[in-house]
This record gives sequence, structure tokens and C-alpha cells, in this order.
Amino acid sequence: MAFQGKKLINNPDDVVTEFIEGLVETYPGLQYLDGFPQIKVVLRADVERGAYDKVAVISGGGSGHEPAHAGFVGPGMLTAAVSGDVFASPPVDSILAAIRAVTGPMGCLLIVKNYTGDRLNFGLAAEQAKSEGYKMEMVIVGDDCALPPPRGITGRRGLAGTVLVHKVAGAAADAGLSLADVAAEAKHASEVVGTMGVALSVCTLPGQVTSDRLSPKQMELGLGIHGEPGVAVVELQPVDVVVEHVLKQILSQETQYLPITRGSNAVLLINGLGATPIMELMIAARKAVPELQLEYGIAVDRVYTGTLMTSLDMAGLSITIMKSDENILKRLDAPTKAPAWPVGSEGNRPPAKFPVPVPPSPSMKDDEILTQPQELSKQGCILEAAIEASATEIINLKDSLNEWDNKVGDGDCGTTMYRGATAILEDMKKRYPMNDAAGTINEIGATIRRVMGGTSGILYDILFKAAYASLKQSRTVTANEWADALEASVAAVSKYGGASAGYRTMLDALIPASTVLKQRLKAGEDPVTAFIASSEAASAGAESTKQMQAKAGRSSYIAPDLLASIPDPGAMAAAAWYRAAALAVKNKLHGSKT
Amino acid sequence: MAFQGKKLINNPDDVVTEFIEGLVETYPGLQYLDGFPQIKVVLRADVERGAYDKVAVISGGGSGHEPAHAGFVGPGMLTAAVSGDVFASPPVDSILAAIRAVTGPMGCLLIVKNYTGDRLNFGLAAEQAKSEGYKMEMVIVGDDCALPPPRGITGRRGLAGTVLVHKVAGAAADAGLSLADVAAEAKHASEVVGTMGVALSVCTLPGQVTSDRLSPKQMELGLGIHGEPGVAVVELQPVDVVVEHVLKQILSQETQYLPITRGSNAVLLINGLGATPIMELMIAARKAVPELQLEYGIAVDRVYTGTLMTSLDMAGLSITIMKSDENILKRLDAPTKAPAWPVGSEGNRPPAKFPVPVPPSPSMKDDEILTQPQELSKQGCILEAAIEASATEIINLKDSLNEWDNKVGDGDCGTTMYRGATAILEDMKKRYPMNDAAGTINEIGATIRRVMGGTSGILYDILFKAAYASLKQSRTVTANEWADALEASVAAVSKYGGASAGYRTMLDALIPASTVLKQRLKAGEDPVTAFIASSEAASAGAESTKQMQAKAGRSSYIAPDLLASIPDPGAMAAAAWYRAAALAVKNKLHGSKT
Repeated sequence: MAFQGKKLINNPDDVVTEFIEGLVETYPGLQYLDGFPQIKVVLRADVERGAYDKVAVISGGGSGHEPAHAGFVGPGMLTAAVSGDVFASPPVDSILAAIRAVTGPMGCLLIVKNYTGDRLNFGLAAEQAKSEGYKMEMVIVGDDCALPPPRGITGRRGLAGTVLVHKVAGAAADAGLSLADVAAEAKHASEVVGTMGVALSVCTLPGQVTSDRLSPKQMELGLGIHGEPGVAVVELQPVDVVVEHVLKQILSQETQYLPITRGSNAVLLINGLGATPIMELMIAARKAVPELQLEYGIAVDRVYTGTLMTSLDMAGLSITIMKSDENILKRLDAPTKAPAWPVGSEGNRPPAKFPVPVPPSPSMKDDEILTQPQELSKQGCILEAAIEASATEIINLKDSLNEWDNKVGDGDCGTTMYRGATAILEDMKKRYPMNDAAGTINEIGATIRRVMGGTSGILYDILFKAAYASLKQSRTVTANEWADALEASVAAVSKYGGASAGYRTMLDALIPASTVLKQRLKAGEDPVTAFIASSEAASAGAESTKQMQAKAGRSSYIAPDLLASIPDPGAMAAAAWYRAAALAVKNKLHGSKT
Repeated sequence: MAFQGKKLINNPDDVVTEFIEGLVETYPGLQYLDGFPQIKVVLRADVERGAYDKVAVISGGGSGHEPAHAGFVGPGMLTAAVSGDVFASPPVDSILAAIRAVTGPMGCLLIVKNYTGDRLNFGLAAEQAKSEGYKMEMVIVGDDCALPPPRGITGRRGLAGTVLVHKVAGAAADAGLSLADVAAEAKHASEVVGTMGVALSVCTLPGQVTSDRLSPKQMELGLGIHGEPGVAVVELQPVDVVVEHVLKQILSQETQYLPITRGSNAVLLINGLGATPIMELMIAARKAVPELQLEYGIAVDRVYTGTLMTSLDMAGLSITIMKSDENILKRLDAPTKAPAWPVGSEGNRPPAKFPVPVPPSPSMKDDEILTQPQELSKQGCILEAAIEASATEIINLKDSLNEWDNKVGDGDCGTTMYRGATAILEDMKKRYPMNDAAGTINEIGATIRRVMGGTSGILYDILFKAAYASLKQSRTVTANEWADALEASVAAVSKYGGASAGYRTMLDALIPASTVLKQRLKAGEDPVTAFIASSEAASAGAESTKQMQAKAGRSSYIAPDLLASIPDPGAMAAAAWYRAAALAVKNKLHGSKT
């Protein structure tokens, strides 16, 4: 069944005038003539009638090729653009209005794509303008390379190569050249440019039904920009094959459309036809450049990849090649304020681009420090005891964590944490620099990163990285420094993970732990007592998650009543290892008095 | 039946690396890190490792949003962009590689769209980099306004508004600000920006089947940029209705996502989602600007309309509003060489744009001149006789012309020419300035333009306009000036119509006529004899079209054997009126001696 093509428009009859209204809303430098609906002319807002002191360059044609041509109006490119209705030549009166609005004593060049209607309407307007006393020249661009010559009077169609001719002419005019010289440069440019297009889909005119001419596995080669069928319909091919084929056609020795041979220089334009993602255009550019350089011996001076001359919403692209020389490059590189002219392609490019080497990670501290020292310092002993107790606690808690997680998540919390805990116990013996607390914390992060995976893995990695960054200045760490490190860790997990207190996550254990630890130390309490109190706060916090609604992770997709009375396993795990560490530190320092 | 979505790609697994290779071929200022396939980082080619003397600004995320983010790398915007696979967060090692490659002593700001994977991977990379000694800050952008708060931890998605945050941060960094100040400006910008999207089609991942989730008459409102379903599926609406709805959501007083009220200033971004023609984006801009200004009392400072943050090949758009102030405008207006940042929107725009009046046609000569003079000069008499004879000949030839045209064209040549001839006879009596030959020729063109229509009408209009332009200097026209005018006319018709001798058109009568006339006059022959000889050449030329293959007009679609022995009706008509004019001039000057 056929449906009207989907478009974000209002009345299909108003698309061109509404486009122009939106265009001038967007660009302060553009204006339009008050002649809707018949006269649809976009012009530079800064050109005063009759007073323009350079050659005016005007182009135009049917609409549906946006951004062409109105998007190329601006200092350094077109002085005005005349739009017809979609795919229809503009009437003579519109063209005349544009000429009269922007042409000064230096005269006016019309650049016209080779279609009969455009030639005749622009031609008649030129003759009328001449009879009114304007100096006029006209250059016709027929850059299509899809069909073999001779094509008689209808000849080669004007395609995306026209935009490069606009740029050359616009820059020549901006440089102050005479009408004859601007026209000569434009004519020369039009004689050394060739284009061919391919399409994956047929365009849909506003308000009309989309053609089903192309099956889901076909593409068209050698098409125009007005929805006309291509020269050939072929099976869909990888884009590298398409690019090879198109370049072969454009550079054919049989048609000799372009005066380009081995050793020539050229610029390349990969142009999207309206609905082609930039990703795909760039992939085509990636193939075309080395193909031209290596297969055809052509030096590619500039590459323009973008959506410049379209056929409404057609999916596809065209490739344009223009023979370049010093003067053409100067014109193409000249600055312009035309909004749609591509930015960033100017300037010489290296013949080949070699990627920049990936920077190495900064050299780690001495390997020695990264192996267990012969003898542990006092702090090293305490740290070892704390890590061992914490890891063991997690290992013991594996089944409970999995069970809780089965009810509120995906059931692997215990298994994931168990994987981290066992690897930590193993790595600690092998390589943690236990006398360097900061280094050890950093290594715990590395172990977790290597084995844990998943969101909890990355969050714990962040936690230990942040603690390390906070601790690394000091070799022997004070209680206050530990408290600062915990605070920084909690902040990092909250910031990057996006959760805070009450979200039913590990932070519901660690935030109270951090807060209490800081408070108690500030109050002057003994560090071990403070640590124990803080670990009790962690446990209480974890228990409190039973009453919380989930806002993060998979639990957030579970109905609240299913969550009630089940604690968050992440919070329980955090409270458990934290509490185990506190008790271990206490044991180590005060013996087993409690 | 489901088919793999059509794309101009090679192996779907390689799209991101091939995109990057094409990108750096296109832009001389961009480079990439040699870490494919895992590390996909685009960076400024001019930043040397460790030596960058400004705050580095890095963004990134999953691919499929092109030109974001790699297209925004350049002086004044991003220093590097990190790409993941399509719609997948980049791994920590890639982000770290980017940080290490471009960060200097001033530090580095990461700008991250609010998705869990991006937050965690960028967050971990930031912590790791800090631990390596880099100064790091990170700002998370969640500008989605489609869903009501609270959204918990997953929160508001990062959408196209992120690009505006990139620009603000990039310009602040370029201005030499400290990391804390750049981060503060980015954070502020992220807090005053809101976005909502609508889609006509679902995007297709490379190598996958296109979803048929949306029917041909439906659209989605409030979607993300990863192919996830929108908040609501509705019937397709005119874009004005869509824009109204989206603005209402973004500016909702209920959600209060944006601190924007009546009297605020703002910038507007109309962003294409990948397959949306610029025409449609501009039509949306045309509605959004006055809607904001008149309905909401918001002054629109800047409008950006373009394709900046996409969802592969999705047809649709998003609207972003950012509250603006002097500093934000300064940052947005600051120059950048990032290729995808929109050009031409900078600078203050008038509150409303009134179109430029259409220039009047130049005042015609006195009305008096345009009416028949009381008494005809000698030249006026001759001209009158020639026009009368020519027109009468065409009137008499009507049926023959139609008959020939029936066989080789569309059968209306006689009727069209007859229409012109009768109108000329009528207008001549009423208003041709017969004593002014140039003026009369000009008026014949005007008559033809008014009544004839079609290609032949426009070609004859061009013919007479060109003759007028050639003649208009002289009131009494010499034979040589008439010959020059004929030559100029023939050249104009050939130039704009695209035909030349042998194309089976009216030029096959007029080119020999012009050539012979010039030759005979140059040889010193009596003007009347030369005119007669020239008219015989015209007739012979018209007859010769019987043997010609058509290259122009409708006849070019007819098989050659059908054309044989039928003359071209256009050539016959031209020869006939020209011959009649010659005979009439001879009669008038030498009496009826022949």
C-alpha cells in the first residue's frame, strides 16, 4: 500500500517559502525579497541595491537541493540565490528581481546548472537585464559523467560540481576581478569538473507518495538530482566497490570528460544527497582518496565531505572531481561566510596521514615497590590484616549476596564480589606494596578492574582510584587522611555513578560510614573507636535499604512491594567488608579485647 | 519481509574506524590515534603531547551520532573526541589514551552525556588520570526534557544540547581560563539547556534489520539518540504543531527543567537526527523562533539549524533551548575551526526580519514613445511592412507547421506561432514605437512573452531581447547594425537553448541567414540584395533539416527514419517569416520589380 512520504512540513505547497523564512531566521547575514510566493530570492543582507562594488554572482534553480543554492549566499560566494518551486526552474521575473537587487556597476555573473528550463529562464533574464543596462555574463555547468557523449542539446546535467564553480566564481568576484575575468574563471572551473551519483532510495516530493522503484536490495547508479531514474539499477554493493566504479566512470578515458591524467592534481567532493549520514559519506571519502592517489596517480589537494547539493530526502551520494591548480585552490581556500560551504578542508593536506602513536601509560613506580617487601612495617601489617579480613568476609557472604540479588537484581552480586575478593587475596601476596598504603589501594583497583567487570566492578575501580589519588602524597597515612580518602571515594562514586544517599546502592552504607568517621575524628575520638563507630553506621545504613525504593541499577525496574524487606546487596557487601576491616584494625592494635 | 537496512558501508564492524579514516582525510587539522580497532580517538593535529598550554576539552561516547563528537574537534572547541562502537560507550583505555595525548599542565575537562556507561567509563578514566598526576574535571550533561522528573539515577539523557556545552567550554578553554573556570562555565551551561526530539523513522544499526515499529502514518515524540522508543507514538502532524508541542514540553512550568521565564534570552538549536533534509529543519526554525518570541516572550539571540547530533539514519529532529547571557553568547560566537560547528549564526540578529522590497523594473521610456507616432518615418514604414508580411506569412503557414509538428513533435508549433503572430499584428497598431526600431523589436519580445509560452516562446523572447540589446544605441539602424543584431540574437538562442547548427532547430534557418547577411554586406553588396540572399540561405537551411537527426526538443525522442523527409517546423517557421520580411523590405524600397 502506498502512503504519502513522511516529512516534517506543513502545506506541501509552502515548503520553499517556509524554508527561506527559516533560513533567514537562522542566518543574520541573509535576507530575502518580499515577493512570495512567486519570487523566492535569498540575498546578502549587507548588499545595498545598486551600490555593490564587486561582480555579483547569482545562481539558483529548482528547490529541493538544499542547502544549495540559498545556503551558499554570503560574502565570498553567491551574492543571491533564486529558488523555483521543488524541482522547477524559477520564473524569469524572480531571476530579474535578484539581478536588479544585487547588481552594481561591476555587473553580474549567472551560474546555471544545465537543465533546459534553467538555461532558458536564466538566459532570458540575462538578456532582459542587459537591455536594462546591466553588464551580464552566464556560465552553464554540466558536470554529469554518468552518460556517454554525445548527449545532444540536453547534454550533461548540472550536479554537485556546480557548488565548486560557485566557490571559484564567488572568490574571484570577492577578490575584485572584472566581470569578464570572473566569468572566465567560472567557465574554466566548469570545464574541469565531473560528477556521478548513486542512490539507495528514491526521493519523495512533498505531499506525494514515495516511489517503490528500488527494491530493498537494489541501488541506482548515475542518477540526477530531480528524482529521475539512474542509468543502471544494480544489486547493493559495499561502498568501496561503489566508489571504485564511480571514479572509473568519472575518469573514463573513453568519454574524456575531464582533462585529468596521471600526475594531475584534483580536489574531491563527497556529497550527500539528502538523507545520507555523515558516517557513510566519510567512509566513502576514506576509500576515494587513496584510490585516486594510488590507482590513478592523482594528487588529492582538498577533500570536501558533506551535504551540499541534495535531492530532497534521497539516501545516496555523489562524487565530484575537479582538476585543481594554484588559482583554483586559492579560490576554494578563500574565506567565505556562506553558511553551507564546508569548513576545515582548506589548506594543504599531507599526501598520506599516519596516525599518532598511542601515548604509553606513565612508567609505574619501581618494580621493586610493587613486590611484597621482605618485612612489613607496622602499618603494612595492619593493612594486610584489614584487607584479608575484608576479602574473607566477602567470600563468606557470597551466597547471601546472590540470594538477595536474585530477588531484586540479576543474581550475580555475590559471584562478582567473590571474584574480586579472591583475586585480591591472591594479588596481595604476589605484588601489593603493603608498606605503601596508597600504592596498595591503587593495586586493589587494578585487580578489581582486571577481574570484576560489570557496573559494580567499574564503581569499585573508581572508588579505589579516587582513594589512591587522595592518599598518594603520603607514605604513612594518618587517620584523617584515611577519612579524607574515604570521603573522596564516596564523592567519586556518587558523581560518576549518579547515585546519592537513599538510592538503594552501596553508597547507603559508605556515606554514613564516611560522615561518622569524619565527625568522630573531628571530635577528637581515638581513630580505632571512630572506625568501629563508622562501621556500625555502615551496617545500619545497609540495613536501612530494606525500606528504600530503588532509583538506580536493575532494581529500579522492580515493583516497590517486591523490594520491601530485602536489603540492597551492594550496600550489604560494602558494609560487610568495611566492618570486617574495622574489626581487624582494632584487633591488630588493641588485641582482641572486645 | 524484513531486509537488512540499506547503508553505504563495507563491513558493519568497521564503520567507526572507517568513518574516522575518512574524517581525517577530509580535514587537515584533525588526526587520530594509532589504536584501531579498540582505541578510536580523534584529536587536533596541532596539539603536541604534554605541551598543550590551554585546558584540554575532551568529549565522546558511542558512535552513530556523527558529526558528534569527532566533528567538533578543532581550535576553539574540543581538543579530542573518544568514540566507542555504535551506541556503545568507549572503554576506559581509549579515554585515557585521549587524555594522555592532549592534556598539558592546565589540565583536562571531560564533557559526558548522561548515560550510565559513559559516566562510569569517563569517570574511571578521570580518576585514573588524576592518579597519574593530570588535573581533571568532568561535567555531565542531561538535557532531555521529554520525561517528567524524578528520573532517579539514570536521569535525564544527554542529547543535542551537549554540543552547545562543548562550544561554551571549548571557547572558555581557548580564552585561556583555568580548569576550574572552564568546568564552571560548562557546568553552568549544562544547567540551562533543554532538549526534546521527534522522529518519523527508527534508525537502523549497520548490518541490522530496520525496525517496523513506526507505521507510515506515525511519529514518535520524546526519543533518545540510541534508537530507544520515544515517550509517545502519535499520528503524523504538521511540523508547526510538532514544534508547538515540543517547545511546550521543554519550557514546561511543571517540570521546570529550564530557568527560563518570560523576558529571558535564549539560543535555539534545531538539530537533524541524521536523515532529515535541511529544508525541513529550516521550516521548523521558521516556526520555533516567532513561537518563542511571541508566545513565550523569550528573546531569541541565536539560531543554529543543522545536523549536529544524530542517531544514525533517523528521520526527525530535536529542538534545544539554552538560556543565554552575555558570557554564553561570547562563547558561542567565538571563532572555532571545528568542522561541524555551524557557521553564519553568530552575531546579533534583529528581533524580526522584514523582507527586502522587490526592486521595481526600471522605468520604461515615456509612454508617448510607446504609442504609434502620428507619422511614420521612412524606416518606420519599412519596418511596419516587414513585420506585417512576416506575421501574415506565419498566420498563413499555421496548418503546415502543425502538420509537420504532428509528425515529429507535439503538433502545436503552428498554433503557438499563430498566437504570437496575431498578437504582434494587434500590438503593433496599438503601441509599437515604429520610428524607433530598437524599441519596436523590444516590444515584439514583450508581446511574445505575454502570449506564446512554451520553449519556443521563451526562445523567441530571448531572440528579440538580444536583438534589442544590440540595437538600442541607434535610432536609425544601418544594415550592418541589423546584421550585428541578428548575429547577437542567434548567439543568444544558441547559448541559452544549447543548440547549434545541425541540431534540427530554428537555428538551422537563422545561422545561415546571419552568416550570409554578414558576408554579403562585408563584400560591399547592396543591403536589400544581401537581405534577399540571406533569406534564401534561411530557406535552404530550413529545407536541409529534412535530412537531420534531432538533437534537441521533443523530436530527439523520435526514431530517425520517422523524421526523414519531414522538415523541422521551427526552422521552417523561422525561414518563412525571415523570407517574408526580406521580400517586404525589397518591395518597399525597390517597388515590385521582382
